[in-house]
Amino acid sequence: MLEKVDLSKKMTKEEYKEKMPVLESRLGELQRQCKSLNIPVMVVFEGFGAAGKGVQIGRLIQSLDPRGFEVHAIQRESEEEKMHPFLWRFWTKTPAKGRIAVFDGSWYRRVLIDRFEKRTKKGELSDAYHSICSFEKQLTDDGCVLIKLFLDISKKEQKKRFQKLLENKETAWRVSKGDLERNQRYDDYQAIMEEMLQRTDTDYAPWMIVEAMDKRYAEVKIYSAVIRALARQVEKVSHEKAEAEALKAVLPMDETVRAAAAAEEAARNVSDLQESVLTKADLTLSYTKEEYKKRLKKLQKKMEILHSELYRRRIPVILGFEGWDAGGKGGAIKRLTEKMDPRGFVVNPTASPNDIEKAHHYLWRFWRAVPKDGHIAIFDRTWYGRVMVERIEGFCTRQEWQRAYKEINDMEKDWADAGAVVVKFWMQIDKDEQERRFKARQENPEKQWKITDEDWRNREKWDQYEDAVNEMLLRTSTDYAPWIVVEGNCKYYARIKVLETVVNALEKRCSRP
Amino acid sequence: MLEKVDLSKKMTKEEYKEKMPVLESRLGELQRQCKSLNIPVMVVFEGFGAAGKGVQIGRLIQSLDPRGFEVHAIQRESEEEKMHPFLWRFWTKTPAKGRIAVFDGSWYRRVLIDRFEKRTKKGELSDAYHSICSFEKQLTDDGCVLIKLFLDISKKEQKKRFQKLLENKETAWRVSKGDLERNQRYDDYQAIMEEMLQRTDTDYAPWMIVEAMDKRYAEVKIYSAVIRALARQVEKVSHEKAEAEALKAVLPMDETVRAAAAAEEAARNVSDLQESVLTKADLTLSYTKEEYKKRLKKLQKKMEILHSELYRRRIPVILGFEGWDAGGKGGAIKRLTEKMDPRGFVVNPTASPNDIEKAHHYLWRFWRAVPKDGHIAIFDRTWYGRVMVERIEGFCTRQEWQRAYKEINDMEKDWADAGAVVVKFWMQIDKDEQERRFKARQENPEKQWKITDEDWRNREKWDQYEDAVNEMLLRTSTDYAPWIVVEGNCKYYARIKVLETVVNALEKRCSRP
Repeated sequence: MLEKVDLSKKMTKEEYKEKMPVLESRLGELQRQCKSLNIPVMVVFEGFGAAGKGVQIGRLIQSLDPRGFEVHAIQRESEEEKMHPFLWRFWTKTPAKGRIAVFDGSWYRRVLIDRFEKRTKKGELSDAYHSICSFEKQLTDDGCVLIKLFLDISKKEQKKRFQKLLENKETAWRVSKGDLERNQRYDDYQAIMEEMLQRTDTDYAPWMIVEAMDKRYAEVKIYSAVIRALARQVEKVSHEKAEAEALKAVLPMDETVRAAAAAEEAARNVSDLQESVLTKADLTLSYTKEEYKKRLKKLQKKMEILHSELYRRRIPVILGFEGWDAGGKGGAIKRLTEKMDPRGFVVNPTASPNDIEKAHHYLWRFWRAVPKDGHIAIFDRTWYGRVMVERIEGFCTRQEWQRAYKEINDMEKDWADAGAVVVKFWMQIDKDEQERRFKARQENPEKQWKITDEDWRNREKWDQYEDAVNEMLLRTSTDYAPWIVVEGNCKYYARIKVLETVVNALEKRCSRP
Repeated sequence: MLEKVDLSKKMTKEEYKEKMPVLESRLGELQRQCKSLNIPVMVVFEGFGAAGKGVQIGRLIQSLDPRGFEVHAIQRESEEEKMHPFLWRFWTKTPAKGRIAVFDGSWYRRVLIDRFEKRTKKGELSDAYHSICSFEKQLTDDGCVLIKLFLDISKKEQKKRFQKLLENKETAWRVSKGDLERNQRYDDYQAIMEEMLQRTDTDYAPWMIVEAMDKRYAEVKIYSAVIRALARQVEKVSHEKAEAEALKAVLPMDETVRAAAAAEEAARNVSDLQESVLTKADLTLSYTKEEYKKRLKKLQKKMEILHSELYRRRIPVILGFEGWDAGGKGGAIKRLTEKMDPRGFVVNPTASPNDIEKAHHYLWRFWRAVPKDGHIAIFDRTWYGRVMVERIEGFCTRQEWQRAYKEINDMEKDWADAGAVVVKFWMQIDKDEQERRFKARQENPEKQWKITDEDWRNREKWDQYEDAVNEMLLRTSTDYAPWIVVEGNCKYYARIKVLETVVNALEKRCSRP
């Protein structure tokens, strides 16, 4: 893509002065529209060193309301960042709906500078491209406008700019050894950039090449690109809104919903074959109290020792718990963590998303909770809500939950690629056992708070949940992040199985060099 | 994904007999609906040997109108197929709109059996996955229903089935050495299958695992899966049609179109910066007649020699020609091929698609014309129509032409990965030169047929085309398939540049070991 770039482009001062006021006011207006339509925006600046990324970002934000954006300068990974999966620092910086995030450098560092400096190993490169494309697809599928600008200058121009900076004491520090090395080996670095552009120029997140030899020209081009992308999304979202309104007027919503539900039901009727991952679980498995106590003590001891080995070896661990209401998640988590050093783990209870979480991609809050190397994160309910409750209650569209299987697999793979142990538990009980537990809770004044009307309502949808759970187990059980179905009618048995599984997974991981 | 499969599933004869008549009549009905709604359908059968693919396909088609489907049995590549890119034989088998294609084995062979037997080299694997996902995304984006069924049986069951086949003289031939080898190394082969399932289980083309130990159970599950997928698409397409109708009633179409056009225009106005790949072309470049003749002779001689070397070395060549009307494509192609052995090349003129072509994906007709190894295919106008005339005339949606850049890059990469030399020429002239040539044609009785009203109409859209061409050149010029802008005001110069470029590219390719 760089081959066809004409770096001789220039703009006269007059033309520039004529154009800019129009562009500036239009950009401000679009920012306000994006805010009111809840459109999140990301603007990425990449390109050659000294191409003027900093200057151009400064000019771009002059037209923006400062309460509505943030700028992130992406340097080499910090110690903290190194202890997380590579996309972690970018996921946590994705903007809320209606806000703009500008990136001076970005996740592309991984396949550019870090690759050039051999910080990214050869085997990691293909994974990194996969992760990047998946990241960008997930964000744009979710309605984010992602604008990727690549600032291009020639080798000669770059050298000139570096020299000018070096001549002045106050700016010399801005030119690093790496900058000079990349200028000397400009062709090699350009080849890396070209490969990057080709592999990541997608329909959902295309690259815009900016000829950056002339600052005025570049500025006008950047403004124009940002304006075009925002205008298009504003137009699209407004149009969809208008269409939905218009449709509501002619087709009463009820009818549409009813028609869709009927079709769904018809399709179900011809295929009422229950997938049986769950029915396979042998719920008669049990331990006596004595057996339980003996095993528990031994396993907890092992866990304690493994936990400190994990810490020493900087291995992160992510454990997800899902299951039927009253399936015994809480009890199992308690026994698992009882003897562990509390400074080394955190339990994240997952409720329905709060306002801030709702304003982000549904995976954002889980990315934020990724543990750093050597730590354990336990999730009481997880990101799988998307393909269970959100699917069944219609909190997301069919497209959204169908897409989620791959999104989740990709996320877990990113974690595993970064060295994490990832295990997910499904706490399985049968319908009768659930009823017994619900009733016992209601009769026990100390446990009454644990049981709500919603629990009883969910229970009515048992079959729908069973379908969804079976599909989830099938599509998202992988070698890097397996699902373990825990036979839970006997609590003793369930707790031991969880502990045992975790201990085995950690022992296996620790035996790796 | 295979880990969670319960192979013990069975169905009684009674249940089977009760369910099948309903399923059979429903499938027949859906086939008719797909036909009337122009929905193309592909059903892929993959899985372990002796899992019953053949039997199940036989049962599935019993409910189908035989005029509406075809079944393709995919064996090891034939000599003919080996001489083409690996997806070629599948692209050419994609069904027309409204038809059903069933695949007994498929493109997954490349990452399964062929990989197991080391016919697919290690370095090719990642490319193969990329190609497969891109292929499936392109088809489903285009409205095709792609149903992927994976028939799963255990090692023990597979062995039993093979033995039973071997015991009988009439069926023994059906068990190959490879089958037995894969049974012996069942775990290794299963690991390969598991990786395949994980990497290709996407939202647009998910896998359905079919527990195939019990034939009745498997048959009902396959029918149900196919019915569900078809019903969903029928519902979706009907719904979209109804919505479009309803919208037309409330929002007169003109207005919607006008609003979209106005928004587009507004976006253009703020960024009337012309990309200048084209304006960079120095149209004063020229040769005298003597120079031209001298060079032409030399180059044509070289071309003749190279052509036979290509043939000996089995190198395929794909040359695409685009350019302004009267830009000199025909003349350049004529000089290029004049001295070549006519058995070794073919010139494909690309007009607007005919009915059969329209009933397929827009890239289908170009895949069909891919030359076999050692041959040259020249295209007078190409697959780039999608991002030029179709974009400008509104023959496809914005989503469609935006998606096309990557689709085309992926296609050309598939060709290059298969060893092809791919070069694309843009014949550039300026607007005045075009007018001169148009007028000259009109005045010459022998050339009058070459100039139509449409040519004059297209000329009025010069600026729009220029924008589109510049974007095309930028996004689709790659190292494996570069664009060459040919300065064409002087026909002599243009013809020599084309010949010279081809000769250089071929010499370079022939110098590779």
